[in-house]
Amino acid sequence: MIHIVGHTAIDHISKVPHLPEKNCSTHISDRRIYFGGGASNIAAGIATLGEQVTLHSCVGDDFGGSDYDQWMTRLGIHQQFFVVPGTHTPTAFMFTDDKGDQMTFFEWGASKAFATSDAPSLPLVHMATADPDFNCRVAEQSEFVSFDPGQDVFWYTKEQLESIMVNTDILFANQHEVKQMCTTMGITREALICQVDMAIFTMSGDGSTLYTKGREEFIPVVPVTLADPTGAGDAYRAGFLSAYVRGYSPLTCCKIGTVTASFVVEHIGCQTHLPDWETMVVRYRQHFGTLELPRKEGINV
Amino acid sequence: MIHIVGHTAIDHISKVPHLPEKNCSTHISDRRIYFGGGASNIAAGIATLGEQVTLHSCVGDDFGGSDYDQWMTRLGIHQQFFVVPGTHTPTAFMFTDDKGDQMTFFEWGASKAFATSDAPSLPLVHMATADPDFNCRVAEQSEFVSFDPGQDVFWYTKEQLESIMVNTDILFANQHEVKQMCTTMGITREALICQVDMAIFTMSGDGSTLYTKGREEFIPVVPVTLADPTGAGDAYRAGFLSAYVRGYSPLTCCKIGTVTASFVVEHIGCQTHLPDWETMVVRYRQHFGTLELPRKEGINV
Repeated sequence: MIHIVGHTAIDHISKVPHLPEKNCSTHISDRRIYFGGGASNIAAGIATLGEQVTLHSCVGDDFGGSDYDQWMTRLGIHQQFFVVPGTHTPTAFMFTDDKGDQMTFFEWGASKAFATSDAPSLPLVHMATADPDFNCRVAEQSEFVSFDPGQDVFWYTKEQLESIMVNTDILFANQHEVKQMCTTMGITREALICQVDMAIFTMSGDGSTLYTKGREEFIPVVPVTLADPTGAGDAYRAGFLSAYVRGYSPLTCCKIGTVTASFVVEHIGCQTHLPDWETMVVRYRQHFGTLELPRKEGINV
Repeated sequence: MIHIVGHTAIDHISKVPHLPEKNCSTHISDRRIYFGGGASNIAAGIATLGEQVTLHSCVGDDFGGSDYDQWMTRLGIHQQFFVVPGTHTPTAFMFTDDKGDQMTFFEWGASKAFATSDAPSLPLVHMATADPDFNCRVAEQSEFVSFDPGQDVFWYTKEQLESIMVNTDILFANQHEVKQMCTTMGITREALICQVDMAIFTMSGDGSTLYTKGREEFIPVVPVTLADPTGAGDAYRAGFLSAYVRGYSPLTCCKIGTVTASFVVEHIGCQTHLPDWETMVVRYRQHFGTLELPRKEGINV
């Protein structure tokens, strides 16, 4: 069982002819609702790849029985939710005009409850973006910890990042997050890498790099027709973690993450085009050749 | 049975610390969802006052079984809905910052289907803001017609307003709408009034005036603690029409409309504080004295 901690969120993506000035209005020509939230995206990816996953999120009383709830149930995601009465499930409203300019309104909603919630002690957990203090407590109490600070990296203090990094086995971050973590912690990129067993740094469309045991290995992206890059990082982590618990080598895990992400970016939405394990393997072979057998027994936690 | 034609809509009212610039984001500190749409507000008011009402609206496939659907069922509103697959029920997103500045994003959604829908022939109908062409056809085919152009007054052409006014018995409008109608039609306020049996012009917190049979009568507002003026006009029309079908004189209908509106403005939301008939009568007596018996038999249509 892989445990994922962080946001479950709902994204409203709207097109408008123009963004409004203050005290003005505009018409929405198209609005689509997507299931999102970093932790939920990762859990959905893992479940679709066929691994057991438990999602730890804060949701509002609008969640139970909702389309999103039903979707998770169909995927087989186990929910360990804090249901916060009188709040909404975190929701983002994104408006994009004809020129591509955007405005985003984000409702943190139920996720406020992370700050005061009891942190679970977990055998194998990935902590996606969420409340820094909650993540510190989860990391401290859990056995094997994977961490990505995500867009909330700015909310972490030096002390919080130091506390989490001491307890982290695998760090995922993109270039912006690496830079921000180094700035906040006052250390170099190399020093950051040395703090964990494995660091995986992603570079959007330019591939990713695995740092482990003093070695550095580059994994190129799988070329696909890009529809929407959102969710690529979450899909990468889902692929990596699913492969990791099956006992694949870290480099193969990165390749499986890369292949998993290549499906997600072909469609708009973070959970709309997730591959199952067999579908992933077909594309893996096309791009990376034979999928070696796992180096070791899978982790059964 | 009173028939109401026009929008059923959902209002998301959010507070933000500051409105975003282009390509920036902001946090929502509070978001509340209210049931709205001019036609639906009027229907809810009429149903709560105890009259039979049928609502003609366009809704998306998100409506059936929703909280709003259940609310209408509890109120006893008869639904004559065009359900438009692949669309949303009209939805407004309003964001207000700490200084009181606003931005509004309005999704017309399912209401686009009015333009191509068959118009019903109705014995007694109030047409709230909706598609001008659809309203023209409803007015032409119906027996007794009440009309308010609402915020969509700008969408009407001269020909459309002329066509509707020929078939209209009662006109409701606020000062802005009267001005816009006169400009579009190229006529004076007096000429506009002469086109209908009854014209009721509302002046926000400054009361309303009834024009009928060459006479002009002023109805003062009922003084209350104002929480939110939104929905006052719809509540006024609900009160007026409910009283009208019970056979009350036009002046009494206006007073009942005024009293009904006074409840709605005491709370945020258009359908959150509607009075039943008895509650309305108590406040009527406090402000306007004895409620005379209806002048004539009620209308049973």
